[in-house]
Amino acid sequence: MKLSILNGPNLNMLGTRDPEHYGAETLEDIEQLLTETFPDDELIFFQSNLEGELVEAIQSLLKSDVDGLIANFGGYSHTSVAIRDALDLLEIPIVEVHLSNIHAREEFREQTLTGRIADGIITGFGKHSYVLGVYAIQRLIADQ
Amino acid sequence: MKLSILNGPNLNMLGTRDPEHYGAETLEDIEQLLTETFPDDELIFFQSNLEGELVEAIQSLLKSDVDGLIANFGGYSHTSVAIRDALDLLEIPIVEVHLSNIHAREEFREQTLTGRIADGIITGFGKHSYVLGVYAIQRLIADQ
Amino acid sequence: MKLSILNGPNLNMLGTRDPEHYGAETLEDIEQLLTETFPDDELIFFQSNLEGELVEAIQSLLKSDVDGLIANFGGYSHTSVAIRDALDLLEIPIVEVHLSNIHAREEFREQTLTGRIADGIITGFGKHSYVLGVYAIQRLIADQ
Amino acid sequence: MKLSILNGPNLNMLGTRDPEHYGAETLEDIEQLLTETFPDDELIFFQSNLEGELVEAIQSLLKSDVDGLIANFGGYSHTSVAIRDALDLLEIPIVEVHLSNIHAREEFREQTLTGRIADGIITGFGKHSYVLGVYAIQRLIADQ
Amino acid sequence: MKLSILNGPNLNMLGTRDPEHYGAETLEDIEQLLTETFPDDELIFFQSNLEGELVEAIQSLLKSDVDGLIANFGGYSHTSVAIRDALDLLEIPIVEVHLSNIHAREEFREQTLTGRIADGIITGFGKHSYVLGVYAIQRLIADQ
Amino acid sequence: MKLSILNGPNLNMLGTRDPEHYGAETLEDIEQLLTETFPDDELIFFQSNLEGELVEAIQSLLKSDVDGLIANFGGYSHTSVAIRDALDLLEIPIVEVHLSNIHAREEFREQTLTGRIADGIITGFGKHSYVLGVYAIQRLIADQ
Amino acid sequence: MKLSILNGPNLNMLGTRDPEHYGAETLEDIEQLLTETFPDDELIFFQSNLEGELVEAIQSLLKSDVDGLIANFGGYSHTSVAIRDALDLLEIPIVEVHLSNIHAREEFREQTLTGRIADGIITGFGKHSYVLGVYAIQRLIADQ
Amino acid sequence: MKLSILNGPNLNMLGTRDPEHYGAETLEDIEQLLTETFPDDELIFFQSNLEGELVEAIQSLLKSDVDGLIANFGGYSHTSVAIRDALDLLEIPIVEVHLSNIHAREEFREQTLTGRIADGIITGFGKHSYVLGVYAIQRLIADQ
Amino acid sequence: MKLSILNGPNLNMLGTRDPEHYGAETLEDIEQLLTETFPDDELIFFQSNLEGELVEAIQSLLKSDVDGLIANFGGYSHTSVAIRDALDLLEIPIVEVHLSNIHAREEFREQTLTGRIADGIITGFGKHSYVLGVYAIQRLIADQ
Amino acid sequence: MKLSILNGPNLNMLGTRDPEHYGAETLEDIEQLLTETFPDDELIFFQSNLEGELVEAIQSLLKSDVDGLIANFGGYSHTSVAIRDALDLLEIPIVEVHLSNIHAREEFREQTLTGRIADGIITGFGKHSYVLGVYAIQRLIADQ
Amino acid sequence: MKLSILNGPNLNMLGTRDPEHYGAETLEDIEQLLTETFPDDELIFFQSNLEGELVEAIQSLLKSDVDGLIANFGGYSHTSVAIRDALDLLEIPIVEVHLSNIHAREEFREQTLTGRIADGIITGFGKHSYVLGVYAIQRLIADQ
Amino acid sequence: MKLSILNGPNLNMLGTRDPEHYGAETLEDIEQLLTETFPDDELIFFQSNLEGELVEAIQSLLKSDVDGLIANFGGYSHTSVAIRDALDLLEIPIVEVHLSNIHAREEFREQTLTGRIADGIITGFGKHSYVLGVYAIQRLIADQ
Repeated sequence: MKLSILNGPNLNMLGTRDPEHYGAETLEDIEQLLTETFPDDELIFFQSNLEGELVEAIQSLLKSDVDGLIANFGGYSHTSVAIRDALDLLEIPIVEVHLSNIHAREEFREQTLTGRIADGIITGFGKHSYVLGVYAIQRLIADQ
Repeated sequence: MKLSILNGPNLNMLGTRDPEHYGAETLEDIEQLLTETFPDDELIFFQSNLEGELVEAIQSLLKSDVDGLIANFGGYSHTSVAIRDALDLLEIPIVEVHLSNIHAREEFREQTLTGRIADGIITGFGKHSYVLGVYAIQRLIADQ
Repeated sequence: MKLSILNGPNLNMLGTRDPEHYGAETLEDIEQLLTETFPDDELIFFQSNLEGELVEAIQSLLKSDVDGLIANFGGYSHTSVAIRDALDLLEIPIVEVHLSNIHAREEFREQTLTGRIADGIITGFGKHSYVLGVYAIQRLIADQ
Repeated sequence: MKLSILNGPNLNMLGTRDPEHYGAETLEDIEQLLTETFPDDELIFFQSNLEGELVEAIQSLLKSDVDGLIANFGGYSHTSVAIRDALDLLEIPIVEVHLSNIHAREEFREQTLTGRIADGIITGFGKHSYVLGVYAIQRLIADQ
Repeated sequence: MKLSILNGPNLNMLGTRDPEHYGAETLEDIEQLLTETFPDDELIFFQSNLEGELVEAIQSLLKSDVDGLIANFGGYSHTSVAIRDALDLLEIPIVEVHLSNIHAREEFREQTLTGRIADGIITGFGKHSYVLGVYAIQRLIADQ
Repeated sequence: MKLSILNGPNLNMLGTRDPEHYGAETLEDIEQLLTETFPDDELIFFQSNLEGELVEAIQSLLKSDVDGLIANFGGYSHTSVAIRDALDLLEIPIVEVHLSNIHAREEFREQTLTGRIADGIITGFGKHSYVLGVYAIQRLIADQ
Repeated sequence: MKLSILNGPNLNMLGTRDPEHYGAETLEDIEQLLTETFPDDELIFFQSNLEGELVEAIQSLLKSDVDGLIANFGGYSHTSVAIRDALDLLEIPIVEVHLSNIHAREEFREQTLTGRIADGIITGFGKHSYVLGVYAIQRLIADQ
Repeated sequence: MKLSILNGPNLNMLGTRDPEHYGAETLEDIEQLLTETFPDDELIFFQSNLEGELVEAIQSLLKSDVDGLIANFGGYSHTSVAIRDALDLLEIPIVEVHLSNIHAREEFREQTLTGRIADGIITGFGKHSYVLGVYAIQRLIADQ
Repeated sequence: MKLSILNGPNLNMLGTRDPEHYGAETLEDIEQLLTETFPDDELIFFQSNLEGELVEAIQSLLKSDVDGLIANFGGYSHTSVAIRDALDLLEIPIVEVHLSNIHAREEFREQTLTGRIADGIITGFGKHSYVLGVYAIQRLIADQ
Repeated sequence: MKLSILNGPNLNMLGTRDPEHYGAETLEDIEQLLTETFPDDELIFFQSNLEGELVEAIQSLLKSDVDGLIANFGGYSHTSVAIRDALDLLEIPIVEVHLSNIHAREEFREQTLTGRIADGIITGFGKHSYVLGVYAIQRLIADQ
Repeated sequence: MKLSILNGPNLNMLGTRDPEHYGAETLEDIEQLLTETFPDDELIFFQSNLEGELVEAIQSLLKSDVDGLIANFGGYSHTSVAIRDALDLLEIPIVEVHLSNIHAREEFREQTLTGRIADGIITGFGKHSYVLGVYAIQRLIADQ
Repeated sequence: MKLSILNGPNLNMLGTRDPEHYGAETLEDIEQLLTETFPDDELIFFQSNLEGELVEAIQSLLKSDVDGLIANFGGYSHTSVAIRDALDLLEIPIVEVHLSNIHAREEFREQTLTGRIADGIITGFGKHSYVLGVYAIQRLIADQ
């Protein structure tokens, strides 16, 4: 299976940032964890701090043979109509993940505009959210 | 590991209900899936349609040796201060699961009062939400 | 015809309660009125003050041969996602009734979460709301 | 008994309009159904698309010997303070009826400004809403 | 001085309606009171229950030599963009009057869309509101 | 092609009214501009200040052979459920036009209840909004 | 007749302040206008910038033989529960006046907490609001 | 004097729960404190986690000779229309108590639907809230 | 024990004011009741209608040896950030009291800005609220 | 005439995306349609998925000799203060276009922050919205 | 240069109050810091806890030769229409200062009614806010 | 001292844009003013119109030896969760500046999402806001 793992703004800074909400691992640690946990899958990692680059990364999946998308759009999850509309173009399974529980923080994080387009959302398990995201995609694809 | 799997109102009717949102499996199918997927764990299933019985089921975990809670409070997730306060008593890991993506339905389902107390939430993967919930608990416990 | 007449919280206290809004008849008076008005129909009366018992009473209709449901969920009409979801399971006609006009009282009574799932609502005619409810069910069934 | 049956905007177009919400009968069909169902009552039908004409039709009841009013103000139900204030002049029983269930459509139809002044409301039973409305008036008058 | 006295919906029914809010005088009583109190002024009375007729009555002032407008738009004050826009055409002084204190009743009466276009508003003095309205117009004109 | 050009409240006063928002042309100027610009089309002009007359003008299109509707409901655009429901009866293309940009004025003009039923909306181009409206209808019809 | 004329914050600065909203007269000019216009009435003027002093000025009316109160509470009209509660103590007629039309300015001026307790409100006539206020009181007292 | 002391959801868990908000005493400690403090009164203790059981406990007071009710409905205070309606049946004095200050916590705890029906509310004094509640009832009864 | 009893706007008028909400006793009656009920405590009474004087009265407690504060800020409870901030300076126990039940009146009285800073609130028991307030302070101090 | 045609996020994907809302044409099809329809005008096409690039494209118009701007900012229309502020720099005519009717979809699309700065808006005509946009610009420029 | 430094409620208590938000300096410390930092300017300090006294202090500036105003209205910043209206009288530069960052605390502190009238606002720098305020005034005056 | 001066969207266009709100200076003028005013400090200027580039500019400060950040995020201040989250990574002092007073313009500019993370905010002093920002940073650093 070939999966795209998209990460949005500030996730490249993981490990340097508020450990209470996000844990001590870096994004590289998470990517390595995923590679080790799923050695049989092809995982394509991409991170960008730019809303438009994330839109384009999503669009490029249309012309690829990727089987599923696991995405953490960070702060854009709550405000980006553009990313939401790009996700709407896809027909592959989409899983939105968040490191911290978006329902247990500021009120403006409780709504996820992009998550409405996803098949499902996994929020609050730190690095494990990504691992669970891959499990979820595998099961969604197996169901098809 | 010993895990409690709590289900709230109408989940006993799964399989008879709106398949678009909830799939065709019954609650028994889901319980069997979990038992087969996690043969080494002790899974304790409980379902109730009564808010107060769910409160008491949560309270009873305090006196048990259960290692974690996976719960789907259905319609009570969005309105029950009482269940929320009961969850607040627990110190074991809590995972809230939903069959359908609560962010992709009516607006009143987008907020989860009980989910604010959970460690994390998994929403939108049908029966797989429960399986992912057990994986999540296992990882949360392993982290401790 | 076989009809279920469900009553929710505090309706067992009718006659003792605020006569301005609810009239002087007891629930027994209303049941007798219905029995006398519709001698050819089988009317099955049930009242509960517990949200979950009402959920279960609705669920049990699925396995019965009841032809229609007339229900007054009282205070739960405005807040219960659980009862709303249970009603969603049914395929028989549903009529929601209220003794007092819910649009002419406190603002929180103006919305009925359960009524959105009903075929129709009859509100404000005191005991007659129930009689009209049976007439309504008869006509909905005749239309099928 | 002498009853006024008032109909508001677009109800003269019934049968040509969205059958999912309003059924296939024309307003004439409904009037005929009422005349046949209640041969002993004098039913006075009036329809207008103009808010002010409806206000005046209500005012004219003050000088008539009409015993009750059954009214469907259509789109004006949700916005007209003027009709609401006219209804407030009456002392005869008032029943508001709607063809479709106003609680199961757009949010702006859920509130009825005119219905707050009515004795009761019957909503969601198609043409039967009118028949039930006459039954309701008969019972309200009998109670006096 | 030549003044237009416009009255909106249901004001033709004054005296028959809720005396607590509106007093016992009829509209004719008020017109007579004005005629007697201001014998030197030409007062032109007009009442309509139709929003559009009120719009047209306002428009017709543009082609007349009327010096000022005293208007009570009743229920339309709170909802009519059309009357508001018509008032915006006028350059003569405008005084909005209300019989009852619009700030001491239902919340939806507290805002007056039409009153935002008036020079001033007089509310709560029963029939005297009209008399004060004429005094106000006289003073506004004298100031020019 | 045969087109109906409907105008609502106060548009008969164009040219006398606030030139900053509406320009200096009268409604007759606009009608002449349309007739000259589209000599091959049959344009049927109607203006009314009454909400109900506009409802009826829309209803009458059902029995006509008009190919499309260009309408400017003025102040009723923002409040009229009755006109909205009448538009819902039509199957011909509908274009809503506004002289001024409704998104650049008071907040209550930003929503258009009637525009939700239109195929499209053209707002802010003064008299040109109407010309563009006819172009739009022509293209919508050509697409069918 | 003996009347209290209460003025609130910043009204002592009239004439120095924004002439567009308040005119060029000083508070002394207004007091003189009132004295000259009503030579037979005893007018007692009081101005304070302190909310509490206004509360006490109102309270002191209880022990006086004042026949009516004309008050302009300025900025406190929109926020002061304390003044509102003090007005509630009085049984004499109360008229609230405003120089500018409170419905034609910022939204926070549209509600008047104190005006809900007044018999009536006169707003938008500059210095004339006070003169009209005295006329209003005279008529309210004559009605008793 | 005979008093009912009702406790709602999770109060049976006192002492095990968040000591910052609720103190270290158990419900038994509080009951003992009350018994010792008021040896001359008959105190009837009841706790339930079920909304409907609390409704029924309130209803049962109607047929008892209890002189007053002290109740802490916990999480149901903020959401239960059903308990609110049951309280409305009573004519004995009602005192609502809360251990923690409901005005100093989450916003959703600031409103108490049930407290609107109570004679008074005592909130924030831990176990002492109950003692003060009994003092309050004694004084309310003495006043009758 | 030495206690400060602070009273805010209009409480000096007790007994003359709306007896339905506030009872017939004067503030002096209440002070006498307190003095008689708690002969061993030193009670220091202060009332002011001025927000700023209440702020200063609270500030002065900082330099005194007062053991606790019982305060009824009347209308300022719902709006005064300044009093709220002054209370925040204190370290002694604070009890807010209200004569009437603030949850059973107008909606704007339901929130108490000052009460969020208090240890607890006692509302709805008339003069007894003060007596209960002293009991509450005694118990809070005993707990320290 | 020289015109800039700006397109925002996801418009490069037209034709692959939800045909119900956006039609089957690609952006290239639309550009070709415009070039063919307006052979005498110089049309400069630019599309970007990045908010900041759109800001810069707008800024660059300041130093160009472009006569007008037709822009479709897609999802940024509803949220971008930055694009709105950039548009505010321009003095040439601006027309905002949308393929689908923004008033007939999700509520968050009904407001257009950028459209408030445009001269006018054309929404709902698919590819024709662009053609109409050029017509509109031509007429706006001819008016100058 | 002659500058007025106005301070509102509770600022006289600085140094005794919550050091996390306000620092450990007293108001005297701040005044001394200003005097030492700006030895060439005449600084006139005034503090009051009374809203009305602050209104009057602002009014008195009209008759003085003060060149600018630096003001911290504390809790009144968020609620006082009266102070806002007084500031509106001034033509000298006004700088509003706050010790703590009003955007980083409770939501009700985020809006400043008085700050809308100021030329600028400086918030969050503790005692330095005042020093920066004087720098700001100097620059604003130099610009004139 | 080494300081980063970050500028967001459209600030590169200063001097060409609405002089009423922003003054006539260009961004280069402001940078020159800062360089001349603070010759001993190293000032690093950066401007971008792209949200993501601003995120990255903030992130890059983590690996630099910059002592403080002065930032004007323009339109992104009010909407960008991504920039807010990036600022949260920093431990150096942060000062947010605005040219115009954000509290004196459109309502959507009154909230600053990014400003909640800053130490302080300086708004409304045109180019001087930047100079004051450097003064502020100097003082914050000196305090450490």
